[in-house]
Amino acid sequence: MNRNRASSLDDPDPITIPSSQQPSSRALPRIKTYATSVASAGGPDSSSLTRRFSNLESAIEEEPQIHVDHAVAEEIAEIKRYEDFTTIDWVQDAAREQARRKARRVERAGFFDDRGKLGWRRTLWEAYDAGQGWIVVTLIGIAIGLNAAFLNIATEWLSDVKLGYCTTGFYLNESFCCWGAEGGCPEWRRWSSFWPFNYIVYIAFATLFAFTSARLVKSFAPYAAGSGISEIKCIIAGFVMKGFLGFWTLLIKSIGLPLAIASGLSVGKEGPSVHYAVCTGNVISRLFPKYRRNAAKTREILSATAAAGVAVAFGSPIGGVLFSLEEMSNYFPLKTMWRSYYCCLVATAVLAGMNPFRTGQLVMFTVQYDRDWHYFEVIFYILIGIFGGLYGAFVMKWNFRVQAFRKRYLSQFPILEASLLALGTAVLCYPNMFLRIDMTESMEILFLECEGGHDYDELCDPANRWRMVITLFLATVMRIFLVIISYGCKVPAGIFVPSMAIGASFGRMVGIMVQALQQRFPDAAFFSSCQPDVPCITPGTYAFLGAGAALSGIMHLTISVVVIMFELTGALTYILPTMIVVGVTKAVSERFGKGGIADRMIFFNGFPFLDNKEEHNFGVPVSQTMTADPTTLTATGMTIAQVEDVLKETKYQGFPIVEDWHSKVLLGHIGRTELRYALDRALKDQLASPHATCNFIVAPATSAVDTATTSTAPPVTSTTTSATVDFSKFVDPVPLAVHPRLPLETVMELFKKLGPRVILVEHRGRLTGLVTIKDCLKYQFQVEAHDNPRDDSAQKVQQEWVWDVMRWFAEGLGERVRRWSGGRVKLGDDRGAAGRAAMVGGRRGGEGEEAAGVDGWGRWGWGGRGGVGGSKECGMMCKEDFV
Amino acid sequence: MNRNRASSLDDPDPITIPSSQQPSSRALPRIKTYATSVASAGGPDSSSLTRRFSNLESAIEEEPQIHVDHAVAEEIAEIKRYEDFTTIDWVQDAAREQARRKARRVERAGFFDDRGKLGWRRTLWEAYDAGQGWIVVTLIGIAIGLNAAFLNIATEWLSDVKLGYCTTGFYLNESFCCWGAEGGCPEWRRWSSFWPFNYIVYIAFATLFAFTSARLVKSFAPYAAGSGISEIKCIIAGFVMKGFLGFWTLLIKSIGLPLAIASGLSVGKEGPSVHYAVCTGNVISRLFPKYRRNAAKTREILSATAAAGVAVAFGSPIGGVLFSLEEMSNYFPLKTMWRSYYCCLVATAVLAGMNPFRTGQLVMFTVQYDRDWHYFEVIFYILIGIFGGLYGAFVMKWNFRVQAFRKRYLSQFPILEASLLALGTAVLCYPNMFLRIDMTESMEILFLECEGGHDYDELCDPANRWRMVITLFLATVMRIFLVIISYGCKVPAGIFVPSMAIGASFGRMVGIMVQALQQRFPDAAFFSSCQPDVPCITPGTYAFLGAGAALSGIMHLTISVVVIMFELTGALTYILPTMIVVGVTKAVSERFGKGGIADRMIFFNGFPFLDNKEEHNFGVPVSQTMTADPTTLTATGMTIAQVEDVLKETKYQGFPIVEDWHSKVLLGHIGRTELRYALDRALKDQLASPHATCNFIVAPATSAVDTATTSTAPPVTSTTTSATVDFSKFVDPVPLAVHPRLPLETVMELFKKLGPRVILVEHRGRLTGLVTIKDCLKYQFQVEAHDNPRDDSAQKVQQEWVWDVMRWFAEGLGERVRRWSGGRVKLGDDRGAAGRAAMVGGRRGGEGEEAAGVDGWGRWGWGGRGGVGGSKECGMMCKEDFV
Repeated sequence: MNRNRASSLDDPDPITIPSSQQPSSRALPRIKTYATSVASAGGPDSSSLTRRFSNLESAIEEEPQIHVDHAVAEEIAEIKRYEDFTTIDWVQDAAREQARRKARRVERAGFFDDRGKLGWRRTLWEAYDAGQGWIVVTLIGIAIGLNAAFLNIATEWLSDVKLGYCTTGFYLNESFCCWGAEGGCPEWRRWSSFWPFNYIVYIAFATLFAFTSARLVKSFAPYAAGSGISEIKCIIAGFVMKGFLGFWTLLIKSIGLPLAIASGLSVGKEGPSVHYAVCTGNVISRLFPKYRRNAAKTREILSATAAAGVAVAFGSPIGGVLFSLEEMSNYFPLKTMWRSYYCCLVATAVLAGMNPFRTGQLVMFTVQYDRDWHYFEVIFYILIGIFGGLYGAFVMKWNFRVQAFRKRYLSQFPILEASLLALGTAVLCYPNMFLRIDMTESMEILFLECEGGHDYDELCDPANRWRMVITLFLATVMRIFLVIISYGCKVPAGIFVPSMAIGASFGRMVGIMVQALQQRFPDAAFFSSCQPDVPCITPGTYAFLGAGAALSGIMHLTISVVVIMFELTGALTYILPTMIVVGVTKAVSERFGKGGIADRMIFFNGFPFLDNKEEHNFGVPVSQTMTADPTTLTATGMTIAQVEDVLKETKYQGFPIVEDWHSKVLLGHIGRTELRYALDRALKDQLASPHATCNFIVAPATSAVDTATTSTAPPVTSTTTSATVDFSKFVDPVPLAVHPRLPLETVMELFKKLGPRVILVEHRGRLTGLVTIKDCLKYQFQVEAHDNPRDDSAQKVQQEWVWDVMRWFAEGLGERVRRWSGGRVKLGDDRGAAGRAAMVGGRRGGEGEEAAGVDGWGRWGWGGRGGVGGSKECGMMCKEDFV
Repeated sequence: MNRNRASSLDDPDPITIPSSQQPSSRALPRIKTYATSVASAGGPDSSSLTRRFSNLESAIEEEPQIHVDHAVAEEIAEIKRYEDFTTIDWVQDAAREQARRKARRVERAGFFDDRGKLGWRRTLWEAYDAGQGWIVVTLIGIAIGLNAAFLNIATEWLSDVKLGYCTTGFYLNESFCCWGAEGGCPEWRRWSSFWPFNYIVYIAFATLFAFTSARLVKSFAPYAAGSGISEIKCIIAGFVMKGFLGFWTLLIKSIGLPLAIASGLSVGKEGPSVHYAVCTGNVISRLFPKYRRNAAKTREILSATAAAGVAVAFGSPIGGVLFSLEEMSNYFPLKTMWRSYYCCLVATAVLAGMNPFRTGQLVMFTVQYDRDWHYFEVIFYILIGIFGGLYGAFVMKWNFRVQAFRKRYLSQFPILEASLLALGTAVLCYPNMFLRIDMTESMEILFLECEGGHDYDELCDPANRWRMVITLFLATVMRIFLVIISYGCKVPAGIFVPSMAIGASFGRMVGIMVQALQQRFPDAAFFSSCQPDVPCITPGTYAFLGAGAALSGIMHLTISVVVIMFELTGALTYILPTMIVVGVTKAVSERFGKGGIADRMIFFNGFPFLDNKEEHNFGVPVSQTMTADPTTLTATGMTIAQVEDVLKETKYQGFPIVEDWHSKVLLGHIGRTELRYALDRALKDQLASPHATCNFIVAPATSAVDTATTSTAPPVTSTTTSATVDFSKFVDPVPLAVHPRLPLETVMELFKKLGPRVILVEHRGRLTGLVTIKDCLKYQFQVEAHDNPRDDSAQKVQQEWVWDVMRWFAEGLGERVRRWSGGRVKLGDDRGAAGRAAMVGGRRGGEGEEAAGVDGWGRWGWGGRGGVGGSKECGMMCKEDFV
């Protein structure tokens, strides 16, 4: 009978409690409570779920209990891992890991005592267990290296196919086709000798590639769109996003990325490289139970794979580690650094071993600058640095406007958008010699010295100088425009390489001009350190520095950029110029706001991420931001049904346990997941009635009895007609609690550095409130909105106007095409216009989220953009369940 | 009359309280207390010293109060800075800084309202204030760069003087003397054409240099001895060591270092470079009030200068930043990274600009390896990596034994020791071609490829191969021995370069053998990837990798070593081999214990440093380690005399404030320094009688009155005959408090990541204990001692025996010399033997500590060495006042 009741709780209409008695978040009924006296300070209490307290001697006696708790703890951890859009409690995670290790130690100690003979098997198993981390990292590194090699091959082939084909085998790209020959060979043919036809083929392929990529992303893994760096930052910080690092995302990102790059869109492969590398890490580490159940260990792996992603993208292992340190991880202990180092080493070694085309060098574009730099050049270096800073600020500002526009109007046409962008890019870029070719290739050309026989299309010819300057200037401006409109479209797309290409073309332009100046006035005092009659200025170095400046400007990185630039080129004599340029860029870009594009995306998207880089000075106590009257549970006396109601009526992720609602003496905290789990167990396994009362805290006298229990379910003690269920082992008896007058900044430091999900506020032992990261962020945004009020209605009007123009144009075009084709061809816009209200989005199992789900991150109008604090458009930060 | 009483407290015999009533740490008398009701949660309370709580609106009204508090807070901060051997409370420091900034903001707001006209002056001042940090870092960078250039010149000259002299000017070293000429010139002459005479001159100069260096160190700045890296680590973590970073240390380290290196001792300049750079940073930043009063900002500067120290020592700016990150700083936010980056940039740019000898390159030894590496070489790379790990473990083990011996027997003969060591080193090293020359020079030779015309003493001659292998082997072994006995002697001395030189000679040896093997069996399958008839193996690369391995083995660094090796040589094609070697080294060295030599020195010396790299799993609650019954003060009711007695009878660095001794409701915490300051103020300025009662916590009703007070001294309210002094603004009302059952690991995380000086333990609002870093370390060492009991009595016997031998030898020698010289020459040993009991040590103002003070760090027999837990020899960790 009890079983029926228990299962009836799953029905929509379970046993009803009179509504006056139903607990609500503000006024829970005062059920009679039993004050339980808790063990005085410091006594070991074995009944807690997550944290074991006992001194070394008593550890062994506790063995069975630890086992039981373990199974439960890990089952709960498993559940938690799949709760989407929640955050991980690092403090609890660490405690769980400690308990696990301790249990293992105890187990081992017992084992050796009893069955010393079986030692070798155990030793082997332990060695495997200890080395598991390294095995996992090795496997992941190999997988990332192989994937990177595949991507490189695919990208090169697809890029070359746009321009021509190989007569000896269609699957060969130009360099394989002409193996050994320099500067082309007869086997490699252009599509036609008639250039307009080539132009059309080029455009057609570009559009086709972009269409395929966007189609794949939309149908199978919407999370594979974009760069992914900002989301991964949040995930590494402990935010759960189901499917973002899943197998489908990995697969689609790996296929879609070469297509997107080959389509000629102004997008790079580095951000997506990080994403697919992290996916690889996540997918592979999931195969090992050690990582499945431990979030902290997984975080280590994710940091390491993020490093490997950059390492394989640039062929820069140390740069990758530093990137992970500087950009990705808000917590980067030396152990993680060491894992990252190893993962980068393996991945790059595999990539170098595969080495499909190049010379066996990891260095991507080996440049050897024969000449040293001169002190007078520092002025121009500073100029380049300023350009980098301005570039970053400009692109960020306008790209966010474009993204806002995209989110508002274009979110239903991702495929059409990408295809049209690729079409436009191809049409625009083909005529410009630096834009036509692959961005990496164009950088390679721009970096080179003029001496030594390298020359591409008369770049070094002094007669051509002014034509080159104009071409480079146009390339810079057009590429900036293209980056602004392309970054963020729904194909795998990064912004590193496009930025570097822009910087390189600008830098080369400056370099050519400086060279011209020097050659015009060779005797000026300013150029006195130049030796006469030998070349003095190397424009290639300016291109190199420009690439570094633009990369630093967009990402706000310093050390990693410097190291990546060296590992890319090996130009170590230019270390001081690079440092100067990057330094200037950093100083300039900080004038325009904090954080690189990834950080701003986090803000734009409203992820619950406390940025380590920011320092605040609110000058208020935590009591100003806390939830002052949180929903609590009493230690004893509440019935299961009442607790169920609390769960139903609130969406909080956890509930403080108090002695009673009057005194509010804080006794512990229970997470929603744990409570749900405990209730289900109690109802299913133990046949507890909904009228049974819940015991969240056990008096120390009874705890001795409990430890003997071996069942994993909460024990039911049927003393009277109404049974009591013991939930105490699901309760965290020592949640982090602070004084209400503690400064908010200190509380934020606690969140950043220790990473709890919730901090309780306690005054003289009584609960006065509860604070989460969300509360801190809310306050922060309120203050910022108060300090810098913003009005974007003009922007919205503008956007509306742009959209109207686009629609008018599209409809006119569609009409014309339909008329011209006799109604047989209908352009996608019509479909879109007709089905605008309907959500379009393929689904794929539990893996790929629906497109609307992604857009549901819907950040337009939140935080920095719209007004916060009372705004209805506040996005996910306002969701109550979002802790 | 009151004044008399107040001053009488300074007398040895102040007004006596009956001894039965004197407070002791265990049983303070139950004086009648007045329960004060504290403001309920969150109300702004302006009476606290360090933390301001008020919302944005009320800030302006508080202005005068903030001012007053400021002056007091900064005066106290100033006092604290000079309390030797204490630690800094980072939480309080951050809070103080926030208060300061807020005060400035408020001030500014008021200013603009009132005197808008004077804006430009204010703007200028503000720009200066904001840019002050950069100005300071620039100045420091320039100073470090200049100092490094001076050091380089001095070292080269002194090193060359040992071998010969310049006829055109005695002050020129060989390269200046022979400017432009390759391989020597007639102007540079050896001391004589008779080699035994040269040998003797060499030895004499070496001994003289070492003697001078040791003499300077001993007389003027004992802290200038050794490397200083471990001490700086602790200082950056917040430990106060007066004079360690002072001007005299800087001066003596700068003078003593070239002498020590030129003396030929197996010591390097990198550790000392870090030390003098940090001294420079400290000395210069002290000139600016912003840094004088803020420990967190100073920490930023110290981290940055540590980076610059490595940067100038190796000419490796990025390596410097990474070194500071990986080794020096337990807290390295991105802001600090950015400062470090800039400081390194300035310092290396200045050094490159000064560039006294070399080619204008920062790269120290430019090597260009023409050949790429082959996969089969990985086996040998692994061998080199293993050597690195073993080298590190071996040197650490034996060096610590030597250091223990030094501390026990040689601490009184630092000058004699250094001189004898230099003498011995010179005698041993002169015959070996790789040991005779400067270590840097020998590395340069060993790194080179054989092709391209470089050859030093037939190193590349295949006929000489086996002679070279033997010479290199001897050089390796002897240098290891010399490093073990030299590192730690009382001259400025680092261990980086000696380790690298050892690694280079070992690596070259391996390289030559591999080359011989390959040339012997050119057709073996193993060597199949070598092309026939061209050189395949480059022994120079093995030397390069060996240097990296040894450096990594001794310091346990990874990324920084890789980057430093590249910046040293520019050999970027060897990035994967370097990473493999360093990885293997790291893996091997971790078998032999955690932490590099600097970390072990911290442990050996017993500094209160919680290592971030270590992870613990004690499984005990904090209540197990806390001081269970700390000395407390009551919020009200204690008289000044009673408080004075508490201060006199205990040496604790702070006292919790409780409501009364019965309930022990925690109300706050007051630091010893603040209390002392407040008492002095009260007695001096306010003429309070010793019988006046102290109010540590003010009821909210009265606080409104207090805010009007403008005096900086605690207000005295003479309500009745016995006055009340208000100390509330010196009290921290929200000390960090945790639950007694919180796991010790979490508490240690709090210490590591937030950095408070003390954490209180509170259960249901009542104080149950108090825990400090010392308590955590004590427990940690107890556990370690329990797990790995150690018996070093055999070692002690050994040491005793060595000492006896040395004494016997010295006495015999002394006797012989005295007899031979007719009693006119007495060797130092006699003086030492005679005056052994007397402390020898020059003093120099407040700056240089006495030599005994340095040795007073006396860590022999503590922690890892002697038995802990009850050991009487426990060193400074046992001092009660050491929090």
